[in-house]
Amino acid sequence: MYYYDTKRDSTGLWIEENKYRQKYTKKSESVFTTENGYMGIRGTQDFPTIAECKGMFVRGFFSKATKDEVVELINCPNLSEVYITTKGKVISLDTCKIENYNRKFNVETGELVFQCDFLLENNIINIKSRRFVSYSDLHLFCQQLVITLADGNDLDMAVKVGINGQMTNSGVAHIRKTECGVRNNTVMEYIGNTDDSEIDIMMALDYEGTDDAKNYGLERRSIYEKRKIKLVKNKPVTLTKYAMVFTNVEEPDITKTDKISRIIENRKKGFAKLFDEHLQEVYKFWKNAEIKIDGISVEDEAAIKYSQLQLFGMIPKDTDRVSIAAKGLSGEGYKGHVFWDSEIYMLPFFCYTNPEMAKRLLIYRYNGLSGAFKKAKEYGYKGAMYPWESAFEGKEETPLFAALNIETGKANPVWSGRKEHHVSADIAYAIINYYHMTKDEEFMHKYGYEMLIEISKFWESRSVEKNGRLEILDIIGPDEYDEHIDNNTFTNYMAKYCVGQTLIELKKLKENDNNFYEKLSDKTKYEDNILGLEEFVRNIYIPQVNKDGIIPQDDTFLSKKELPDIDKYKNSQVKQSVLLDYTRDQVVDTQAIKQADVVMLLNLFPQLYSPDIVKKNVLFYEKRTLHDSSLSYCAHAQACANIGELDMAQNFFKKALEVDLVDNPYDSTDGLHAAAMGGIYNCLIQGFAGVSADDSALYITPHLPKEWKKMEFVVMYKGCRLEIRVSHDKVDIYKTGDTSYPLCISINNNIMTMEANQQQLSA
Amino acid sequence: MYYYDTKRDSTGLWIEENKYRQKYTKKSESVFTTENGYMGIRGTQDFPTIAECKGMFVRGFFSKATKDEVVELINCPNLSEVYITTKGKVISLDTCKIENYNRKFNVETGELVFQCDFLLENNIINIKSRRFVSYSDLHLFCQQLVITLADGNDLDMAVKVGINGQMTNSGVAHIRKTECGVRNNTVMEYIGNTDDSEIDIMMALDYEGTDDAKNYGLERRSIYEKRKIKLVKNKPVTLTKYAMVFTNVEEPDITKTDKISRIIENRKKGFAKLFDEHLQEVYKFWKNAEIKIDGISVEDEAAIKYSQLQLFGMIPKDTDRVSIAAKGLSGEGYKGHVFWDSEIYMLPFFCYTNPEMAKRLLIYRYNGLSGAFKKAKEYGYKGAMYPWESAFEGKEETPLFAALNIETGKANPVWSGRKEHHVSADIAYAIINYYHMTKDEEFMHKYGYEMLIEISKFWESRSVEKNGRLEILDIIGPDEYDEHIDNNTFTNYMAKYCVGQTLIELKKLKENDNNFYEKLSDKTKYEDNILGLEEFVRNIYIPQVNKDGIIPQDDTFLSKKELPDIDKYKNSQVKQSVLLDYTRDQVVDTQAIKQADVVMLLNLFPQLYSPDIVKKNVLFYEKRTLHDSSLSYCAHAQACANIGELDMAQNFFKKALEVDLVDNPYDSTDGLHAAAMGGIYNCLIQGFAGVSADDSALYITPHLPKEWKKMEFVVMYKGCRLEIRVSHDKVDIYKTGDTSYPLCISINNNIMTMEANQQQLSA
Repeated sequence: MYYYDTKRDSTGLWIEENKYRQKYTKKSESVFTTENGYMGIRGTQDFPTIAECKGMFVRGFFSKATKDEVVELINCPNLSEVYITTKGKVISLDTCKIENYNRKFNVETGELVFQCDFLLENNIINIKSRRFVSYSDLHLFCQQLVITLADGNDLDMAVKVGINGQMTNSGVAHIRKTECGVRNNTVMEYIGNTDDSEIDIMMALDYEGTDDAKNYGLERRSIYEKRKIKLVKNKPVTLTKYAMVFTNVEEPDITKTDKISRIIENRKKGFAKLFDEHLQEVYKFWKNAEIKIDGISVEDEAAIKYSQLQLFGMIPKDTDRVSIAAKGLSGEGYKGHVFWDSEIYMLPFFCYTNPEMAKRLLIYRYNGLSGAFKKAKEYGYKGAMYPWESAFEGKEETPLFAALNIETGKANPVWSGRKEHHVSADIAYAIINYYHMTKDEEFMHKYGYEMLIEISKFWESRSVEKNGRLEILDIIGPDEYDEHIDNNTFTNYMAKYCVGQTLIELKKLKENDNNFYEKLSDKTKYEDNILGLEEFVRNIYIPQVNKDGIIPQDDTFLSKKELPDIDKYKNSQVKQSVLLDYTRDQVVDTQAIKQADVVMLLNLFPQLYSPDIVKKNVLFYEKRTLHDSSLSYCAHAQACANIGELDMAQNFFKKALEVDLVDNPYDSTDGLHAAAMGGIYNCLIQGFAGVSADDSALYITPHLPKEWKKMEFVVMYKGCRLEIRVSHDKVDIYKTGDTSYPLCISINNNIMTMEANQQQLSA
Repeated sequence: MYYYDTKRDSTGLWIEENKYRQKYTKKSESVFTTENGYMGIRGTQDFPTIAECKGMFVRGFFSKATKDEVVELINCPNLSEVYITTKGKVISLDTCKIENYNRKFNVETGELVFQCDFLLENNIINIKSRRFVSYSDLHLFCQQLVITLADGNDLDMAVKVGINGQMTNSGVAHIRKTECGVRNNTVMEYIGNTDDSEIDIMMALDYEGTDDAKNYGLERRSIYEKRKIKLVKNKPVTLTKYAMVFTNVEEPDITKTDKISRIIENRKKGFAKLFDEHLQEVYKFWKNAEIKIDGISVEDEAAIKYSQLQLFGMIPKDTDRVSIAAKGLSGEGYKGHVFWDSEIYMLPFFCYTNPEMAKRLLIYRYNGLSGAFKKAKEYGYKGAMYPWESAFEGKEETPLFAALNIETGKANPVWSGRKEHHVSADIAYAIINYYHMTKDEEFMHKYGYEMLIEISKFWESRSVEKNGRLEILDIIGPDEYDEHIDNNTFTNYMAKYCVGQTLIELKKLKENDNNFYEKLSDKTKYEDNILGLEEFVRNIYIPQVNKDGIIPQDDTFLSKKELPDIDKYKNSQVKQSVLLDYTRDQVVDTQAIKQADVVMLLNLFPQLYSPDIVKKNVLFYEKRTLHDSSLSYCAHAQACANIGELDMAQNFFKKALEVDLVDNPYDSTDGLHAAAMGGIYNCLIQGFAGVSADDSALYITPHLPKEWKKMEFVVMYKGCRLEIRVSHDKVDIYKTGDTSYPLCISINNNIMTMEANQQQLSA
């Protein structure tokens, strides 16, 4: 069940919280994060609260606390707090009697709006606030407060705003040297420097309000402005904050470049105009991203839009040096690291609607090749072995040890960084898929082929001869409740596919552009590796469907016992509750599955097995899956949609929609679940609408829930913008712009051709 | 006016707060600090509050944030918070409706007691808590909560306690590497390491309560225990925390030594017994420290006792490697650094009542000789030039630059570290005084003579020939509103006195113990310096009383203009408010004085000038003094008492008593004013009771306020414990134990002899 209410009004579609509930504080801070790919500011209340966990994150602004730790995305100085004192009290939702509380997030524009009446003795103070991070100027954050004395005698208030550099990542302070000052008599400036990574950050804040006397002050690592304000009944006071943030990730010397004039220009434009500029960029996004579903509830529509907007707010827009972190820019969770989620869960949304952005995510991986080479070398393999977790430099950033075992006093090793290798295949898969969808030859020439070759080399070296075939031993698949297993079907098949596709694409390249091919082969020693790669594709072992029609997850999975009382843990509100009753080793010894594994493979290759095998396996594995990862419900929803199990599909889809919005106060505390948000899109478009694509065709095999009359969405395919309308009995495709080539389109398994000049196709 | 109420009951004398006022939060945290010289824990509420500023400090546990900063006393992991959630709410004074709030601090025992009713819907939860840091086991902190459901239905609560290592010094994290675990199944253990100073800290917490299921968990740099408790009406639940703290300042390897058994032993003893053991040590302290005043109000009595107990809680008891910081162990203010306050303001209390402790403060300075040599060398002087601020190593720790000037963007230099040199004379003065009071030959042989010689060498080199005499140029005296002045009378006289006394004492030493004298002279090159030192004493210029009877503060002070509207700033509740209207340079150009300077000199040498000159100068300088330092009121109170201006004396004494306890919510935020606490004692004993001492006699020249019938107190003099009773017409002295020598005692300027076997003297 959603925790948030939904409301549509003339200003758009909102999710809202109509009562202040302290225990939901950290959850709502994540959910109400305003982010634009450059920066993310958690939706912490404007005023201090007891349970808050403030956070602001800037893409690429990483640092390492000690040499034994991994880098993490820095929790930046706080810009959003407004500290108002009156009658000896701090205005706060915790300390004041409040009425008419409402906070809402516009799922179409990213605006966060707050309003509340604070009751102090005989005074009623109404405070409204609005904030957004701009899509048109990625460095800009605006926040506006309107304070009205609704009742009572005139009131003196002291308002303190500023840049608070005393923030830490859970007690870890990364910015060690700071300078603060006032520029142009109005702009507060903060410059901070991390001493390990030599990244600087510059934050500037201009603040516009009444003409009351103000004065500036310094606190340690902080600067603030304080002004006294006289509140007179029914005379609203408007205070507007314009804040800008820059780091030397994008510019070598942020202190030399004068950013102050930019903030002054923004202030001159004013809140309304800046918001309008932001909206123009938002509308561009929705042009391709919007999914119209006739027959869906407004709540589900809001949840879908919410996931899309936040995903858009997480993707870097000005650089290919970073990717989307597991929590986007919404929290400290997973330290801002990038996982396989980016390619497998999030990339399709961008690949289908905004291929330029998808491309940047893949170039990020190209920039990380040196880190992948390094890891391969360390582990004794060839080519590119991508890190399980990566940050700015693209090298392995998974901690080797997790939290201490509090009983033994010894640290628990983190196996995923050492043994979960499928990420390299996932990246190759994403490259191939991007290429098939876009025909982006330039990308392939500059980045794609080289990555495919290096990843293929890794897989070949990762396999060993055993039982007269090539096997991949001692590995972890997507299901992390199985460790140190042999021949994980997902991994083996993904590896085989990637190496196979690499051979095919490189063969084509040789035919079409031999000159480039030879240079590339010289660089990558591709020709020297061809025989080995061909051998890998021929002999790599893929576990086969058994007599019951089940694809084994790995060599031993089917021989393990089922977990008794699995439903207890499946239905638990607390994730990973199974680990409260069993040790991890005990769980590993059962058929309990953390998240979609074989099922995920079926999603990635919907044509790989016959429909009845797919169905059998989805049902078999779902029964054993605890869905203890947020990546699981959406994958199962998609799989169930594809096999036409629409009740189950809708059930799981609902759960996927609820991952961040559910009525559980502790979920999402550390940040939003970016992968699950990508998964919502995949479930809708690849699942219910049944869209997939390879080099030869775009496939559309819809399985719409019966309540849904129609779905409308855009897919970018081979450079064309296709508006697709899917209903229970018909698929319409409208093409924008001509192409020089026909498109091959399969609708409900009938392959058709849409000619170069043809604008519409229906079936 | 005191902010706190006073109450005497069967358990002793308390200062108390009967209403929770948010804006007093940080002030009361300082005031209710429980400290024992090893550790200090700010009186932060047991439950989280919005305005809190938690702090725990361990003597000698210093670190440096970056190489450009100075070392500071680390704000240690928090042990005292109790996080209780029930009905989806955190129990907090801010978030709950509360009744019957009371918090009180026992000024005789250091116990902090809290009680309050929390109203949640139909429930009334009464919570009482007690805490103390132990005087009998310096490493021990105990905290006990009794929770009673006074009304309403049974209630489930979750209680979380632990060691929270996410604390910082205003955003600066010093402890970078941490390990947490559970030992012996019950003891939470935290080990932290600062990477610059290589000091480790070990904290352990055992927690005793109900038999309800509990589980342990880790958060970043933190460990906690959570248990669920069922509250049943009128069945109190008692939760008791036993925490211990160790650092490798006192033991080379804290991790190897098993401290866990000590905490388990303490837990076995239980709260009541541990508190009783603590009390036994407290009583020992009061045996010599108590000052009984017949006719004083209970409020003032509490304030006096408060200041004495806190001073006792600030002085290190297990080491001579640290001294008393300007804020003791009660806050981050002045970074835990030691100033001249320790010798001039605080040392007399210990010298008069507990000479062993006074000695340790002086040995701290001996341990700091190398830092003093280093500073002298850096500045081109000889001998020992003591740092203006020092920490653990005794080297100069004054920051070179203070906060940035927010307008110019440039840092303001801190002149005191560079130019305020009298601290070296102050230390010598304290050594001489300690020696005269105690006749501690062993101390002088091991430490005292050497320090005196080295300090004297410094002063000789610090002077220059000018106007046919020796002058001390470009200096700052105690009055920091005068900078870069020549011949500060306080400094010049103190230097002359110290060098002169050194010559006298060393001459005596040569006569009595030539063997040691020669070794010492070899080590210090004393003989080579004698001529220069004698020349210094002969020729050092001491500004002379002018025709109006005024002792000039320095060469230019009397030629400056008076500050117009000085009363505005004298009466301002905000300290240093003059700097809001004038620049610092403008203030320096007037006769505005920050704190007692010439007046301080008159206190230190009550026999130096005739009574009418003293009186004239006290009145002249007080008129020009803003009392912008907490060191000023007590000095003026003492001076006024000495000249018999009892109305003024009482007025200033009242202000001295109020320094930390005053009804101003922002005073003492950063910590208690240790020097002012010492000053209260000095004013009482040296001022009103008129006690002073030199080598030849103990002087008693009382000026009791007329409301006070009698004062009773103990003075340790030359190894004797003297109980002294002073009334308006009589002084009685009772000696404990025999001495082998007679004591020379001056009562109201009549010199008398107390024979070796004489037990009583009256006059």
